[in-house]
Amino acid sequence: MDRKKYKVEQEPSSEIPESESVVEGRNAVIEALRSGRPIERLYIQDGVQDGPMMTIRREAAKREAVVKYVSRQRLDQLSATGRHQGVIALAAAYEYGSVEDMLRTAQEKGEPPFLFLLDNIEDPHNLGAVIRTANLAGAHGVIIPRNRAVGLTAAVARASAGALNYTPVARVTNLGRTIEELKEKGLWFVCADMSGTRMYDLNLKGPIGLVIGSEGEGVGRLVREKCDMTAAIPMKGDIDSLNASVAAGVLAYEIVRQRLTGI
Amino acid sequence: MDRKKYKVEQEPSSEIPESESVVEGRNAVIEALRSGRPIERLYIQDGVQDGPMMTIRREAAKREAVVKYVSRQRLDQLSATGRHQGVIALAAAYEYGSVEDMLRTAQEKGEPPFLFLLDNIEDPHNLGAVIRTANLAGAHGVIIPRNRAVGLTAAVARASAGALNYTPVARVTNLGRTIEELKEKGLWFVCADMSGTRMYDLNLKGPIGLVIGSEGEGVGRLVREKCDMTAAIPMKGDIDSLNASVAAGVLAYEIVRQRLTGI
Repeated sequence: MDRKKYKVEQEPSSEIPESESVVEGRNAVIEALRSGRPIERLYIQDGVQDGPMMTIRREAAKREAVVKYVSRQRLDQLSATGRHQGVIALAAAYEYGSVEDMLRTAQEKGEPPFLFLLDNIEDPHNLGAVIRTANLAGAHGVIIPRNRAVGLTAAVARASAGALNYTPVARVTNLGRTIEELKEKGLWFVCADMSGTRMYDLNLKGPIGLVIGSEGEGVGRLVREKCDMTAAIPMKGDIDSLNASVAAGVLAYEIVRQRLTGI
Repeated sequence: MDRKKYKVEQEPSSEIPESESVVEGRNAVIEALRSGRPIERLYIQDGVQDGPMMTIRREAAKREAVVKYVSRQRLDQLSATGRHQGVIALAAAYEYGSVEDMLRTAQEKGEPPFLFLLDNIEDPHNLGAVIRTANLAGAHGVIIPRNRAVGLTAAVARASAGALNYTPVARVTNLGRTIEELKEKGLWFVCADMSGTRMYDLNLKGPIGLVIGSEGEGVGRLVREKCDMTAAIPMKGDIDSLNASVAAGVLAYEIVRQRLTGI
């Protein structure tokens, strides 16, 4: 793996300024795009179409960066320096890994692949906590969709309590397509859904992708339909659902249990 | 149970103003104390010992409210109205339940008691997520120490996603003493600790109290020594620990699994 290792505090702290990941102004943004530094999102002033801005758009398209066209007022709000020149880029606090690397790691360790796939996890604390769980449950990586999920911001890094240094996170354009590709490589996919089979009654011991959705909506229909199994956590209570990171933890540890005990 | 039911949003929102739970000024605080409204914490200006303030101290002592003596500057910071007159009370957003009620509920349902005990959980999101887990895992209540844990604030209520309407939370003066008393009533106590026995190898099917500590410190020594068993979640990764609410969820669901499957 070629992911850079950054030092992160074990416990949440404010020592990593959020502003570290904000790049403002045309030259700085062009430079960031060309350097290959991962860009979460690009805010461009609506209607501005001069030469440098067209260069930025072209570079952004090449790197598949998500572009949002916003008003000048919105850019003024986002700007820390007041000198945004019509463009602000949010850089990832961490570099992304690749799905191929995750499979290679599993192979090197002689373990059946164990991946997390997160559909629509919007909350940075939940994403961080899930990466932390993935690390301790022995998963080989976490896959998130490029457009809709929260990225690897400093808040996510803090909530991961250092796990981002060890557990790669890959961003893919289409979760459903990634599932199809991984099925061809022998993985089985289990989707978290209340209406599914009680998790103890499923065989989760083989090469597996665990698909977790957001608290409000669950796993999206298109992604759910690609899955081989649907796993339900038994619920005895009065409310609707567990916190998303708790649900991910409970399901991940059912996989760990089955792998460790063989039953 | 005589706990009042409050309406709470399912998802985090800012509709419940935090200020609802702040009571300022001498008469308002005396009235709040005498009405039996649960008070989380009382901030009294250091050195003020006049008649009304002595009444407040006496009422606070009767109701076992936690009193902090602070500077006038600190009170000015805490004050929303600027008219604190040397005293500010933080009222609980929810009323506390009692341990006796929890045991009665278990008996009425014909279930072996299942309680959560939280030692030093400081983060309101974690406390809320644990109450949510307790509800869905079918636990009969959550016990927190009076002095050191975060109380039932509006932030905790929101993070509980409505579970506080159903799952009682009791506050006790001394967790160790409560454990001793509950042992006499037939409960067994299992403490979460990395150095313990692998959780699958423990019998967690009987009447049980699950003791969870903070992420930094774990369960305190005095409380840990009162427990009958120490349960470890298997950890394969590189970092130190799971998020506290995830760890609570994984352990709670090992108890659920053993109870449901009988193995």
